[in-house]
Amino acid sequence: MRIVVDGMGGDNAPAAIVQGCVDAAAVISDQIFIVGDESLIYKELDKYKYNHEQITVVHASDVITNDDAPVRAVRTKTESSMVKGITMIKEQQADLFISAGNTGAMMAGGLFILGRIQGIDRPALAATYPILLGKGVSLLVDSGANVECKPNNLLEYATMGSIYMQKVLDVDNPSVGLVNVGSEENKGTTIIKSAYEMLCRSNLNFHGNVEARDVPKGVCDVIVCDGFVGNVILKLTEGLAWSILKLLKVKFTTGLISKVGALLLAGKFKEIKAEFDYSEYGGAPILGVKGAMVKMHGSSSANAVKNTILKGIPFAENNVVQVIQDSVLEMEEVIISE
Amino acid sequence: MRIVVDGMGGDNAPAAIVQGCVDAAAVISDQIFIVGDESLIYKELDKYKYNHEQITVVHASDVITNDDAPVRAVRTKTESSMVKGITMIKEQQADLFISAGNTGAMMAGGLFILGRIQGIDRPALAATYPILLGKGVSLLVDSGANVECKPNNLLEYATMGSIYMQKVLDVDNPSVGLVNVGSEENKGTTIIKSAYEMLCRSNLNFHGNVEARDVPKGVCDVIVCDGFVGNVILKLTEGLAWSILKLLKVKFTTGLISKVGALLLAGKFKEIKAEFDYSEYGGAPILGVKGAMVKMHGSSSANAVKNTILKGIPFAENNVVQVIQDSVLEMEEVIISE
Repeated sequence: MRIVVDGMGGDNAPAAIVQGCVDAAAVISDQIFIVGDESLIYKELDKYKYNHEQITVVHASDVITNDDAPVRAVRTKTESSMVKGITMIKEQQADLFISAGNTGAMMAGGLFILGRIQGIDRPALAATYPILLGKGVSLLVDSGANVECKPNNLLEYATMGSIYMQKVLDVDNPSVGLVNVGSEENKGTTIIKSAYEMLCRSNLNFHGNVEARDVPKGVCDVIVCDGFVGNVILKLTEGLAWSILKLLKVKFTTGLISKVGALLLAGKFKEIKAEFDYSEYGGAPILGVKGAMVKMHGSSSANAVKNTILKGIPFAENNVVQVIQDSVLEMEEVIISE
Repeated sequence: MRIVVDGMGGDNAPAAIVQGCVDAAAVISDQIFIVGDESLIYKELDKYKYNHEQITVVHASDVITNDDAPVRAVRTKTESSMVKGITMIKEQQADLFISAGNTGAMMAGGLFILGRIQGIDRPALAATYPILLGKGVSLLVDSGANVECKPNNLLEYATMGSIYMQKVLDVDNPSVGLVNVGSEENKGTTIIKSAYEMLCRSNLNFHGNVEARDVPKGVCDVIVCDGFVGNVILKLTEGLAWSILKLLKVKFTTGLISKVGALLLAGKFKEIKAEFDYSEYGGAPILGVKGAMVKMHGSSSANAVKNTILKGIPFAENNVVQVIQDSVLEMEEVIISE
């Protein structure tokens, strides 16, 4: 397995990226390429002991930033770490691409450099959504790549998400839920109603509509929605968790008795914070392009980089792309019988 | 001021509804009508001391349940408490209608019995969204009435929400935010982009796009979105708050030291729970119909009923319906210049 990591993407690049690669390399035997400005990357690498044959630097003189327009950046910044990294997948010099950089550019790079899997209309970003109290994760597809979608796109998200859950996260017969405003089948927009019917006719383990209140409880393994709603779910979760933790902090540090109580609970607070620590869960796979790509959170820490590498390996190893390709005919039958 | 309350709507009707009316009557001098099965309502009322001239029972022999199809129910169940209550507004026998019953039927009743305000295309449900740490509320419009909408509907929601915020919740020059996947102006769906332009041209205090992560922080007074997204925001907030509070409970009741710590923090936990107590915030006004209607949560307690009555009074008293009517021409100019 050969993993190529964008050394220049994200708020903490290249320091956190390089450290995460070194930490990952210590526990796996796979090859890691770090693409980016070689003087900057080596400056970070030199801080650590590592196997010089296992970690290789690939020089890239340019960077795609978050301010760059995605499509234009991919077309023009051909010497950027993002474009060079994705091209290594295309040319089969590597098997898995990871970046904390510009999400739109990464999607565009997947589409233009790797191409979409034949029969997949809209590749999607799938985010792992942590279920509290150690109950694992749900996969939220699409979590932000396509703000508008057609019913067949939702069927694609459900199918690709189920395959990823099965092949990468080892969930047998993953259940699929469609985000809707009510659980009854006649609820929602015209697009949602039509997707509901397609999902019923599919071979997926379709659980039906799910209301947003049940998403944090882990009601289904795969949560399907358009990218607008997926973005709202992810970001609201982040914002609300932040607000609630802040509320606890303010309340528990007011008054002496509270402070003593909070001190006695210090260990538990650490456990609670860990449940919210996205860096443990790995990144968000891009599903539907001809190659394995994983997007990390822009502010990924070294630990997040390490975990994304470790959890990303089965994505490339277990032929997810090929299995998605094989499922296309089945999806087309469901769509045509509409 | 004459308030008519649906005595039969909601999970805890009629007991909690009647108790809430009695509790509200104790602190106001306004007239309260309770519509519903008079034998059931009187059975509850007889448990309390109350001013028999202030609280009057209006008999209704039928009930619209949550299983009823809204439009059909309003058309056929003419003797239901919901239809009779709304009709009292229409016939100017009362000024404010409150119900914890079937939301769809209440919207349909507003449309068919009261009628929409001329020039308003889509009446909306506006929910008060509590901002933690005592920072008041934002108003989320539409929070679930219309799952699909056009750009001009979003402008209507923004206008009606601003008027409500100003006239009922006493917020000067309320700021308006449009829920979107990013804060930049070119983000989102075709509908959102077009609504963004209309909002920029309007006389509203338009703050721009807001991401879902900033909604719980109280970024704007009025949060505008379609009813599908509004439903997702409200229900995800409810589900996530539940999950987090459950996590705290489980963690803090494991181990002796934690239990002692939790005991010392007992008072703070009460304060925290109170911040999440929706019964304090009043119900959700329906904006855009020719009359003042407030929808309560289906599982409203007596305290929620009381607060909805108290907080609903300025909605009817301050001519919100008339001010919305007056703003229609201004909205039309913004839409036409599109």
